[in-house]
Amino acid sequence: MTRLTADNINQHVVAAKYAVRGELAVKSEEYRAKIAAGTADDLPFKQVISANIGNPQQLDQKPITFFRQVASLLENPQLLEKEDALINALGYKTDVIERAKFLLSKVGSVGAYSASTGVPAIRDSVAEFLERRDGFPADPSKIYLSAGASSGVNTLLHVICAAPNTGILIPIPQYPLYTATLALLNATCVPYLLDEAKNWGTDLKTIRSSYEKAKADGIDVRCIVIINPGNPTGASLPEEDIRAVLDFAAQENLVVMADEVYQTNVFVGKFHSFKAVLRRMQQDSPGKYDAVELASLHSISKGMSGECGHRGGYFELCGFDPEVEANIYKFVSIMLCAPVIGQCLVELMVNPPKEGSPSYELYQKEYNGIFEGLRERANALHKAFDQMEGVECGAPQGSMYLFPTINLPAKAFEAAVAEGRTADEFYCMRLLEATGICVVPGSGFGQKEGTLHFRTTFLAPGTEWVGNIIKFHQEFLAKYQ
Amino acid sequence: MTRLTADNINQHVVAAKYAVRGELAVKSEEYRAKIAAGTADDLPFKQVISANIGNPQQLDQKPITFFRQVASLLENPQLLEKEDALINALGYKTDVIERAKFLLSKVGSVGAYSASTGVPAIRDSVAEFLERRDGFPADPSKIYLSAGASSGVNTLLHVICAAPNTGILIPIPQYPLYTATLALLNATCVPYLLDEAKNWGTDLKTIRSSYEKAKADGIDVRCIVIINPGNPTGASLPEEDIRAVLDFAAQENLVVMADEVYQTNVFVGKFHSFKAVLRRMQQDSPGKYDAVELASLHSISKGMSGECGHRGGYFELCGFDPEVEANIYKFVSIMLCAPVIGQCLVELMVNPPKEGSPSYELYQKEYNGIFEGLRERANALHKAFDQMEGVECGAPQGSMYLFPTINLPAKAFEAAVAEGRTADEFYCMRLLEATGICVVPGSGFGQKEGTLHFRTTFLAPGTEWVGNIIKFHQEFLAKYQ
Repeated sequence: MTRLTADNINQHVVAAKYAVRGELAVKSEEYRAKIAAGTADDLPFKQVISANIGNPQQLDQKPITFFRQVASLLENPQLLEKEDALINALGYKTDVIERAKFLLSKVGSVGAYSASTGVPAIRDSVAEFLERRDGFPADPSKIYLSAGASSGVNTLLHVICAAPNTGILIPIPQYPLYTATLALLNATCVPYLLDEAKNWGTDLKTIRSSYEKAKADGIDVRCIVIINPGNPTGASLPEEDIRAVLDFAAQENLVVMADEVYQTNVFVGKFHSFKAVLRRMQQDSPGKYDAVELASLHSISKGMSGECGHRGGYFELCGFDPEVEANIYKFVSIMLCAPVIGQCLVELMVNPPKEGSPSYELYQKEYNGIFEGLRERANALHKAFDQMEGVECGAPQGSMYLFPTINLPAKAFEAAVAEGRTADEFYCMRLLEATGICVVPGSGFGQKEGTLHFRTTFLAPGTEWVGNIIKFHQEFLAKYQ
Repeated sequence: MTRLTADNINQHVVAAKYAVRGELAVKSEEYRAKIAAGTADDLPFKQVISANIGNPQQLDQKPITFFRQVASLLENPQLLEKEDALINALGYKTDVIERAKFLLSKVGSVGAYSASTGVPAIRDSVAEFLERRDGFPADPSKIYLSAGASSGVNTLLHVICAAPNTGILIPIPQYPLYTATLALLNATCVPYLLDEAKNWGTDLKTIRSSYEKAKADGIDVRCIVIINPGNPTGASLPEEDIRAVLDFAAQENLVVMADEVYQTNVFVGKFHSFKAVLRRMQQDSPGKYDAVELASLHSISKGMSGECGHRGGYFELCGFDPEVEANIYKFVSIMLCAPVIGQCLVELMVNPPKEGSPSYELYQKEYNGIFEGLRERANALHKAFDQMEGVECGAPQGSMYLFPTINLPAKAFEAAVAEGRTADEFYCMRLLEATGICVVPGSGFGQKEGTLHFRTTFLAPGTEWVGNIIKFHQEFLAKYQ
């Protein structure tokens, strides 16, 4: 018998759940390997579509040329000794070369550790971006570069959660990083339901009642998480919802954690950052909101950047106690620093080519092309869901996902129970087996009792896979009706 | 008052210590910023030397050309459409282009998430490297790519530590990642002293007595960590020490965690991997060592690669229970994947240009140049320590560090106490203030009671800084004698 067994290792790891890369994802990778090895003749499909994870460049999204040209020079600065060839033979623009020189002058080598919270000049650049975006000052010393937003969330929850009765308000449905991390930390998830009937918006009554109930149960609720635009819901919150949340946080003395990684993936309405709204409220009602502690997160993984594999991101703190900040610093320093090339991509994302600069036109064309492509795919997929019996899905609002409700026949529930699965898992497993399309059951994100959903990205190109979902769904219903 | 204060946040974060990036490092960065801003006229030095952290490319170590040429193509695959220009105008060799094409065919885009445990083809390549290195088979499915070895250690300790009385045997002195992570996890560090008199080797009697004492205290000791070659000591363990540790682990049913990130930084003797030694013991004594659970870690950050900023590494598991492996998989999947360009650099490190290939000669020249340069610097620094009154330091053996003993006068102890510091901290702080040289006090790694040390890298070029240490030391002694 091994020294370590599932029974004696950290039971919080055992308890954690992360469906986005769970059983379905593992199975889909096995299918992919089988297809690659040419031993997939028994499979009823020729291609695996990973619609389970927001991974744009795995599917069709091309990287932004300016970003990658600069990155190539950061990786091999020797190329800068051959500027003529870069420009004439390889078509690099002068602003690409200038940016690479600037970053190298600040970073040194991308192979060296940076300061724990990130390269100072890149933090400056993020602060300037936030000032332009929000119209309010941003302090570079409150900006922490991270290995994607996930690592930022991990840091913040590690510092905030002090005991099993520490409660964090988490939207349901949510991106399961939150519940998984709370499980690892043995802290308490205080779920609050988003309102599907109102485009998955926040409902303050619901939040308050979850909060009061948790408090009555002895939970020390100290933070509320908002994912805006929503994951998995795509919802883009109107300013009044954000104001209501901030007002509630001020009343109840809650830290606000705003996950804003989809801030440029907005099709309907406009993105409002928590920081800007907070600053406006502070201006409008002097004194009333000064004490609010806000952490907002962003990432290079989503949006038109889509650079997931580079693991870059940042979070900004407002109103935190300096001693708490010192502990956040210490926590991140133990892991040394975020990947430096990822930090550089953060700089490129927040400071893209400006109008009039040589790379501007191509950048703008690529950016708009990606944006429109995502919108078109979202709409096409939504149209397909509209045709499917028992499937209900609001119009696409943003992020990279649709999260339709599925109404399944009673026989499907029975078959799922017989297999030891929830009905949505059962449905998603059959979908994968029949079509090679991997989506994530709603239970992986949390859903209102008695409802079933799945989350799918709308990143995959083409319409064939959408047709395959429709066909599968018809056959599934026919079988279990 | 803020909601979060140092008193109510996670007290395990508050308790954790990580001196490598602590007060001294922060102060040195402030000096660096002052010098960069041109406002450092009041400082008695013109340059900060960060000898506190093994960060080769921050100092003088140039990246390996082959690695970075391939990386530049991975970042900008459009360059591959211009092979002629790459070869003729930029001097890229054909094997650079081939490797980039190979990796891109396996990775897709370096901007896409990979599988949670890493790109399958890169895990294959690591397995082949391990087979060549050790002469025993390696299973790619037991290899986990990580964001540097630090992230691997973090993963393994998270899974292994189940309760406050979980004990992990940690060498003292140690790299403080271990004690910091155990503090975060609220598990127990069971320290065992390395033997300074025997080149900082492991002494089984000492290990056993630490183990027995902890067991008697009710600690559930389940793992022993070995850092080989040593950090901060540089010690390179002889095979018989490794055999003794593995034999002890087998007897007491302990998991072995072998931190082997300095495996190519060996000046004296030869590196013996725990995996190879274990496999030989298993061959020699059938059945006796079959149950040993071994995790060995490696990294691109050290050695002749020195790619710290890219955050790449891996760990290999031997003998682990499949259910435990499944939990390790789940844990790493929550953070999605290691940086993909870092994964590619792992592939390049373990599979460098072969003899006869176009890039081989330059690679070999660069590799040997870095190795010899490190050895020369280590010896020069050691010679300086030899001249310093009250400083004792064994001959450099490996890694990137020297860890001299310093004997300080009684008055220095008094002055340190008056400042609320340990004497070694006091010494290192004065050194920084006088010379701009940042080293880490021995207390940051742990040291035998009644002894004082500091750790310095020998990465910085030139001899001026070494002269400055000698001068400072003389003045310090003169002041406090």
